[in-house]
Amino acid sequence: MSDVLRVGLAGLGTVGGGVVELLARNADIITQRCGKRIELVAVSARDATKKRDFPLKDIAWEQDALALAARADVDAVVEVIGGSEGIAKTLAEQTLGNGKHLVTANKALVAHHGAQLAILAEKNHVMLAFEAAVAGGIPIIDTLRNGLAANRFKRVAGILNGTSNYILSTMQKQHRDFSDVLAEAQSKGYAETDPSFDVDGIDAAHKLAIITSLAFGTKVDLASVSIEGIRTITKQDMIYAHELGFTIKLLGLSEVTPQGILQRVHPCLVALDAALGQVDGAYNAIHIESDAAIRTFLEGQGAGAGPTASSIVADLIQIARGDAFHPFTISVDQLKPMQAADMASLMSSYYLCITAQDKPGVLAEITTIFAKEAISVESMIQRTHQLDAPAQIVITTHETKESAMQNALRSIASLASVSESPRMIRIEEL
Amino acid sequence: MSDVLRVGLAGLGTVGGGVVELLARNADIITQRCGKRIELVAVSARDATKKRDFPLKDIAWEQDALALAARADVDAVVEVIGGSEGIAKTLAEQTLGNGKHLVTANKALVAHHGAQLAILAEKNHVMLAFEAAVAGGIPIIDTLRNGLAANRFKRVAGILNGTSNYILSTMQKQHRDFSDVLAEAQSKGYAETDPSFDVDGIDAAHKLAIITSLAFGTKVDLASVSIEGIRTITKQDMIYAHELGFTIKLLGLSEVTPQGILQRVHPCLVALDAALGQVDGAYNAIHIESDAAIRTFLEGQGAGAGPTASSIVADLIQIARGDAFHPFTISVDQLKPMQAADMASLMSSYYLCITAQDKPGVLAEITTIFAKEAISVESMIQRTHQLDAPAQIVITTHETKESAMQNALRSIASLASVSESPRMIRIEEL
Repeated sequence: MSDVLRVGLAGLGTVGGGVVELLARNADIITQRCGKRIELVAVSARDATKKRDFPLKDIAWEQDALALAARADVDAVVEVIGGSEGIAKTLAEQTLGNGKHLVTANKALVAHHGAQLAILAEKNHVMLAFEAAVAGGIPIIDTLRNGLAANRFKRVAGILNGTSNYILSTMQKQHRDFSDVLAEAQSKGYAETDPSFDVDGIDAAHKLAIITSLAFGTKVDLASVSIEGIRTITKQDMIYAHELGFTIKLLGLSEVTPQGILQRVHPCLVALDAALGQVDGAYNAIHIESDAAIRTFLEGQGAGAGPTASSIVADLIQIARGDAFHPFTISVDQLKPMQAADMASLMSSYYLCITAQDKPGVLAEITTIFAKEAISVESMIQRTHQLDAPAQIVITTHETKESAMQNALRSIASLASVSESPRMIRIEEL
Repeated sequence: MSDVLRVGLAGLGTVGGGVVELLARNADIITQRCGKRIELVAVSARDATKKRDFPLKDIAWEQDALALAARADVDAVVEVIGGSEGIAKTLAEQTLGNGKHLVTANKALVAHHGAQLAILAEKNHVMLAFEAAVAGGIPIIDTLRNGLAANRFKRVAGILNGTSNYILSTMQKQHRDFSDVLAEAQSKGYAETDPSFDVDGIDAAHKLAIITSLAFGTKVDLASVSIEGIRTITKQDMIYAHELGFTIKLLGLSEVTPQGILQRVHPCLVALDAALGQVDGAYNAIHIESDAAIRTFLEGQGAGAGPTASSIVADLIQIARGDAFHPFTISVDQLKPMQAADMASLMSSYYLCITAQDKPGVLAEITTIFAKEAISVESMIQRTHQLDAPAQIVITTHETKESAMQNALRSIASLASVSESPRMIRIEEL
């Protein structure tokens, strides 16, 4: 075996720069820990003339990222371009097709094309590694594949999007509204100009779909993830949740149910004293329930140059060591097709905030609807914030079926005394 | 390569039973995940006639555990006998010496003889794996060796002993004294009749010494761990700590300092809102600071049949896959000798509780001592709980040197107005 793993790097943005710096800074311990040097031999980015903070001396420059996949002196390509299609996908296919290892931080690529890429990797006896694609610096892929490999997983619940968690944490701490905090996050560069990917749950869904495949041995199936974002969460919801002993988090949840595997991303009321309830700011965290280890909790930075580079280089170290692993733990041909449970089959408790005219009979109308759907109320608070203004009725329920709750929500929305659509947030026990 | 890894199991107590059950229960997914069957072929325990809850049909019985190391049909021995010497040590040496893999949950064995056993393993090209020896079901060894392998570690801080954490959590929540909670824990079977191993910090020190070796690439050096237990912590300390925004945890800490690597196990004031401050009951947790991933936090069950078996079988899975790893990440001959920093060089903030006569001049005497040692006081509370009783003076300091604090403690203890030795607990920022 050669004593060097030669790497081509596609993308020199924040993460790409982090990889260049980390490989240089920790070259001594990296070499010790894998018994080989990991050498950056070629890079590619859009603009060769751009000033960069890190040295690229003696490293070949390729204007076309695809050239990295063709270079005879490259053993592994690191892809940090992003996007599920286009150049990232072609580069991945050509890299693996040419018998080179691929390390990627690209969650969209793996969520959309993970299975096909894994087939290509297995066929060519090379590694496809994507620790950095899920939860930045947290070694969740490694934990599912190695550390907890003896377990039958029951449920995985994670804070998988740092931007959303930053916004929700700030809304809670500073009693501010979503749009206000989002605008500030955008002006500070914490959130994108088009924040949809983060705040509408899409990014979290990509990561969840990858986690699900590893945890449950199923083909990555992004299409069956039920996705709701955090735009509808209000300052008032945060205040009520807090009074009830909860905070609100955007969770990605994947679990085995009698109907199949249920994958969902949506805001949840999480107990203030639950580990996930205490994860603030841009941190990510994952709660894992399994039959032997019982409960395992991992927390760390979900993004940024250092943490993401940490995971990319960890993948390179495992490849350099010669560890052979299936991208999704078990070989692709053994991955089961997803038998997806429908969101309607979910059993959950619920938080509701109903804005209604403050007059006799409204509560009776609402409780009659609950009775009809066999929904049992756990607590109810009625608040009038201003004279003559509508009242807010905050209800939490015992566990009930999502389909019954959806029926109830429709009936409540159609009441003459209810002036706007009731807001519903699921309560997640962790 | 054979399609089966044949295992001999030495020890059939709680953990051994957990291994038998887990291998049987999850045989299907274990086989899928490592591409091999893991088959228990022989077991050994003291009493062959004892009724056991798990089936041992078709499994050979060896009255002498050492016979497992000699069996031609055993590829790997799992040792869950315990103890750093005697049969466990001999079994480990013979297993590795005979070219068989060794998986052990024995922290004392690895802390005392890890380096020698690793030499033996490397010489015989077999694996020595001990994920279960540190923090039960938490994959901390795997995280240091694989998931965070690209990082230069700065500091590792962990709640490494579940019994101590259970006692401290209960003292805090129920405002009870150490001896009272310990007695209850003993009667419930949570603590041993001789609790020294747990409450005096020895067990945590074993685990810390192993973590240190993996994190910092140094030879395991248990002798240089500074160890203090939790017996001196009082109900009143818990109450004062809480008023100041802290809880008290027994931590194992290992960090790089200008004087070398400082390893210490002692009670700490930890902020109530720090992740480690929120770990309750028998859980273990580890906070890892590194240069790229920045901060990573792992939490899980630290003991018990399921979690410990989870880690043992994870090691077997990695061995079955053919992953080759050095027991301490890097080869033993590259491990540096420990350059140990002395506890006297520690820079820390401190909590002090001084019991003194409630009369003018006492505070002046104390503050004069602090001034002489150049210790800067951060806060001071004086409380008299009963008329004519001595006052309790609770002081927190800014960061200062341990040696200065020890000098100050001696001077304070010798004051005529101070009736008992001042209690000191270090404040740990995490």
